[in-house]
Amino acid sequence: MLQKEVTIYDIAQKLNISSATVSRALNDDPVVSKKTRKRIFDAADEMGYRLNHFARNLRSQKTNIIGVIVPRLNSYFMSAVISGIEQVANSEGYNIIISQSAEQWDKEIANAKTMFNNRVDGLLVSLAYDTKNIAHFEPFFKRNIPVIFFDRVEEHNSSTNVLIDNKRAAYEATKHLIEEGCKRIVHITAIPKRNVYTDRLAGYKLALAEHKIKFKEEYVVISNLGQEDGAKAAEKILHMQPLPDGVFVANDNCAVGCMVALKKAGIRIPQDIAFVGFNNDPVATVVEPNLTTVNYPGYQIGAVAARNLINHLKGAPMYTTDSIILKSELIIRNSSKKSAS
Amino acid sequence: MLQKEVTIYDIAQKLNISSATVSRALNDDPVVSKKTRKRIFDAADEMGYRLNHFARNLRSQKTNIIGVIVPRLNSYFMSAVISGIEQVANSEGYNIIISQSAEQWDKEIANAKTMFNNRVDGLLVSLAYDTKNIAHFEPFFKRNIPVIFFDRVEEHNSSTNVLIDNKRAAYEATKHLIEEGCKRIVHITAIPKRNVYTDRLAGYKLALAEHKIKFKEEYVVISNLGQEDGAKAAEKILHMQPLPDGVFVANDNCAVGCMVALKKAGIRIPQDIAFVGFNNDPVATVVEPNLTTVNYPGYQIGAVAARNLINHLKGAPMYTTDSIILKSELIIRNSSKKSAS
Repeated sequence: MLQKEVTIYDIAQKLNISSATVSRALNDDPVVSKKTRKRIFDAADEMGYRLNHFARNLRSQKTNIIGVIVPRLNSYFMSAVISGIEQVANSEGYNIIISQSAEQWDKEIANAKTMFNNRVDGLLVSLAYDTKNIAHFEPFFKRNIPVIFFDRVEEHNSSTNVLIDNKRAAYEATKHLIEEGCKRIVHITAIPKRNVYTDRLAGYKLALAEHKIKFKEEYVVISNLGQEDGAKAAEKILHMQPLPDGVFVANDNCAVGCMVALKKAGIRIPQDIAFVGFNNDPVATVVEPNLTTVNYPGYQIGAVAARNLINHLKGAPMYTTDSIILKSELIIRNSSKKSAS
Repeated sequence: MLQKEVTIYDIAQKLNISSATVSRALNDDPVVSKKTRKRIFDAADEMGYRLNHFARNLRSQKTNIIGVIVPRLNSYFMSAVISGIEQVANSEGYNIIISQSAEQWDKEIANAKTMFNNRVDGLLVSLAYDTKNIAHFEPFFKRNIPVIFFDRVEEHNSSTNVLIDNKRAAYEATKHLIEEGCKRIVHITAIPKRNVYTDRLAGYKLALAEHKIKFKEEYVVISNLGQEDGAKAAEKILHMQPLPDGVFVANDNCAVGCMVALKKAGIRIPQDIAFVGFNNDPVATVVEPNLTTVNYPGYQIGAVAARNLINHLKGAPMYTTDSIILKSELIIRNSSKKSAS
């Protein structure tokens, strides 16, 4: 089915000039006149000539492609991150290719390999739930191809991390619920394998400890954090005795699914159970009552990560302990205003 | 900054064997023993050797990469499509790389070029609002690299389209509003450049005509269809005299933004204004009242498009008039039940 690859010899033959001239033109050699250069590029385009990446890379070592590996694309947060990355990358003349790991370590390894063989100039990565180590990025580190982790990160000598202070954000969210009068606070989160979830759990525990509320293992509900998982978590909450009076959820989609299910079961929010989510997705202002949540600046995370990567590509050194921590803030809406209701 | 590319000569030197043997091993020549082959591949991995795509492609013409170009990643629909694509592609041993055009023709052209130079085996495309022609896919057609359009499509002799019957879906949505008693029905949609929007507009008009309701240009509200655009559309609706009694919106996010804003202004849904959306996003079951909408099977669209592409890669011919139309259905919830309320 597939046709033979178009070569510089085919272009040379068509234009009736030497293949050496074609080669020089495609390599931007100023020896070739502008007019001839244009003829050659036009013919190359028309004939479907594909840049010889190998030869080209030996020369310039650049593809102007940045690879992005993310766990899932199905969140407002992640699409905001990607918008931020693209905004910066495009302004600097880079194209982006994206792949998702579907939260699986082995897919992330395959993605990294694809990106490596596609000779991306640099890589932006948010790790899967499942990823146990980052050895699959060693080929990049070895070749000094910069890798920057964002949101879901691991420490590495040759890498920079871009994230928020998840522990502090969770601490403030939980403290807010306590100040609104909650004493039995459930925390819905993912399997605590990644920093974002372990740190949020740690912040939740810290706020409880500071207010002399005993941490209870049974109040931590592990979930996949989708909207439908929120409904399942609501089932669990309805069976807890006594009924919890506050819920802090590690993302908004899951919080909203949980709220909708609890409301159907006759629970009043926030009077019976107060809610705080995480991310500030648009759905937070659709659910009733509107959801109190942590504003997670996805666009900025993406823009800062891309800016940092491109700075490295331009020669800025990568320091050992680099971490860039962006600000987050608690946005208080009616889902948590127990004291006023 | 960047290191020199690792070559087969480096591998040969390290293992103290001939470069011809390394080359044969990397090209899967059975002449090389399994043991030597393994040593060579291990060394290649360890040293960060990157497959010579050019040479490799001359031989096998395959990269096992499928490129996906989409207008925007920030929708539930599109992430469902991508899940469907990945499910099928992974089961067949293909990797996916994705890029987004941000609804811009020139970005779509750049994306196509990147995909072409990365030697994807095939391409799945949903077109930008803005795209005026599909000449940028000619290099693929010329080389018999299959291109399949989904959702936002254009006809082309060498391509297949995967979509739903948008006209019929919109006809049914509008007819439902009329049957619920609506007489002044607003249609909120995007600039009608792409099939999905022109076809939905046509379906809306058809339902009106069939029920002897005069089409009014001022009832068509053009928008970017985001949640915030829904709020802006609500402003316009509130200024219409007399007040419309039904709204059919070309996506759920925008419908939800519009509903929330109208409710704030004291409008009762569906009693004053009934609503129908499009897509069946999860948010449709969060907004109150829950949103009547057209179930658009994103996952199946993606799976069918990928399956079709891979069949072509395996040798199935691409027919001139191929179009694959998937079923959609109206899901009736409380936002449109005017007659019962």
